[in-house]
Amino acid sequence: MSTTAAPAHEELRHAMRRALALAANGPERGTHARVGCVLLDADGAVVAEGWHRGAGTAHAEVDALSKLAPGQAAGLTAVVTLEPCNHWGRTGPCSEALIAAGIGRVVYSVADPGEHSGGGAARLREAGIPVEGGVLADEVEEWMRRWLTAVRLGRPFVTVKWASTLDGRAAAADGTSQWITGAAARAHVHEQRAAHDAILVGTGTVLADDPSLTARGDGGELLADQPVPVVVGSRGIPEGARVLRHPHPAIVSRTRDLDAVLSDLYSRDIRSVFVEGGPTVASEFVRRGLVDDYLVYLAPALLGGPRLALGDLGVDTIDDAVRLRVTSVTSLGGDLAIVARNQSESPS
Amino acid sequence: MSTTAAPAHEELRHAMRRALALAANGPERGTHARVGCVLLDADGAVVAEGWHRGAGTAHAEVDALSKLAPGQAAGLTAVVTLEPCNHWGRTGPCSEALIAAGIGRVVYSVADPGEHSGGGAARLREAGIPVEGGVLADEVEEWMRRWLTAVRLGRPFVTVKWASTLDGRAAAADGTSQWITGAAARAHVHEQRAAHDAILVGTGTVLADDPSLTARGDGGELLADQPVPVVVGSRGIPEGARVLRHPHPAIVSRTRDLDAVLSDLYSRDIRSVFVEGGPTVASEFVRRGLVDDYLVYLAPALLGGPRLALGDLGVDTIDDAVRLRVTSVTSLGGDLAIVARNQSESPS
Repeated sequence: MSTTAAPAHEELRHAMRRALALAANGPERGTHARVGCVLLDADGAVVAEGWHRGAGTAHAEVDALSKLAPGQAAGLTAVVTLEPCNHWGRTGPCSEALIAAGIGRVVYSVADPGEHSGGGAARLREAGIPVEGGVLADEVEEWMRRWLTAVRLGRPFVTVKWASTLDGRAAAADGTSQWITGAAARAHVHEQRAAHDAILVGTGTVLADDPSLTARGDGGELLADQPVPVVVGSRGIPEGARVLRHPHPAIVSRTRDLDAVLSDLYSRDIRSVFVEGGPTVASEFVRRGLVDDYLVYLAPALLGGPRLALGDLGVDTIDDAVRLRVTSVTSLGGDLAIVARNQSESPS
Repeated sequence: MSTTAAPAHEELRHAMRRALALAANGPERGTHARVGCVLLDADGAVVAEGWHRGAGTAHAEVDALSKLAPGQAAGLTAVVTLEPCNHWGRTGPCSEALIAAGIGRVVYSVADPGEHSGGGAARLREAGIPVEGGVLADEVEEWMRRWLTAVRLGRPFVTVKWASTLDGRAAAADGTSQWITGAAARAHVHEQRAAHDAILVGTGTVLADDPSLTARGDGGELLADQPVPVVVGSRGIPEGARVLRHPHPAIVSRTRDLDAVLSDLYSRDIRSVFVEGGPTVASEFVRRGLVDDYLVYLAPALLGGPRLALGDLGVDTIDDAVRLRVTSVTSLGGDLAIVARNQSESPS
């Protein structure tokens, strides 16, 4: 048995960045975490790499180990973005695989928040393997934020989107709103739809706008990834509604209890929801503190009038304002896309 | 008499950039244009430079000529940011000074829009001097935009400022609004106050907030430049109002006819006005098409509720939206400062 491998801290950070890049090879949607793994020798040289390719396939650590000859793993350092799992699922626990391979040391970034899958670090230490967590944690946390948020909270990650003019209006006095934003912003919206597992609107929006809730390209063609359409509200949906012709069957929730709606979606393996309104639904998500990312398309236009992007939030005085932190501002054609999150969420 | 000097076009653009830099030496506020001038020999080398130091002092061309020995100007090319004036004011016309000095050629950027001062180019050509306008015109137009707008329209340049949350609210339901934006944005507001000749609010704002309308530094001290306070509206101002203790006597207009108010300010040599609201006054400026720059401080916060930064604009349908173009987005602490102008104004 070799002695503990000991690449220096800077080498570990470098290797973790490589592991993160490998993780990005995995599929973006789905219930499983995207994880990358690098195996280093005592000099810090990369011996093998692996990543997770989605549900039912080998985890990143096992994928990396599979590239070695028998015995070759002995004494190596495993650098992995997520704490190795300790869970007998469709594949065996990575902790056991690493122990069996004779790995000398395990370095991970973010602890596994999973109820069933956590505990891998403890198991490894129990087996006498030195384990270090938290390497490059801010970067990896941010990169895995959607998955981590969903698993920690037991509900899908929620992005609330709205488009408004610079004076906060979502439509003109007569209700017309096509188009507040330009073509580049609208294309961006469709990309966002495709990047979420589900898209959610209120029945009011279905009745008023009859949206198809599909993710479409510039020519109107359907994109490869389509979000599951979700409609919430007490009113019925007309038989001919476009949403009923969506590639995915619509999930229609007659309740306005958003916690219940989100729990149900989570149980259906939906890990991210794109909320497209209208104002009543968006405001309700805000009031209940259920928004993880705000995505606001701001058109350089003014409308005045009574039709606002957000309605009442139950805020009476300035000290009770919902305080956010802007994480990005992107120029899209003449419009701005502003992404923000709750200020109370720790900076990353 | 020498033959016409002939620096190449690229040399002229280069010299115009230098003239623009010289112009920036002049005082920022006041009724006079900030102008710079460079005198070039036939090889394009700079022989003398000048700029305008404010009302009652030599114009840029005369300032540059003053640095030459008698006869030395003969045949030189004068490169000047603004068309030489043709006006007997407190100083003689620059056109005559250039002719008398024997200048060989005149190149300027922007035509003088002044009713009395324009016509210099025609006068020079009449005297047989080749004249070329429009060199680096977009850049110089943009740089002189405030002065040009004021002279062309015969009213001060108008900047309308408001601060709102990401959902377009200017205050919470109970009217509290201190502080929507953070310290950096507030400091920026004071710099903007100091950079305008006047600051304008409605009587409603005076009655509700009792603002001092001064430009102050971080410690509350008065900055060197103070805007003249202007209050418009039909209601009276309380005797103890802070605005009445402003370093400049307040101009109180009992009319809500903003065209008349602006004409009056122009006649008082005010060339720029910073409109700080509230919503009624700001909306009225927008409705009447009297806004040259919009300056919107956007706080990453949400308030909901009925208190909006802008009220009704008389826009009924989306096609009648007031369309703007964003010219800059600046991050100030956690807030954004968005500057925009009417889309119809030609791009620069």
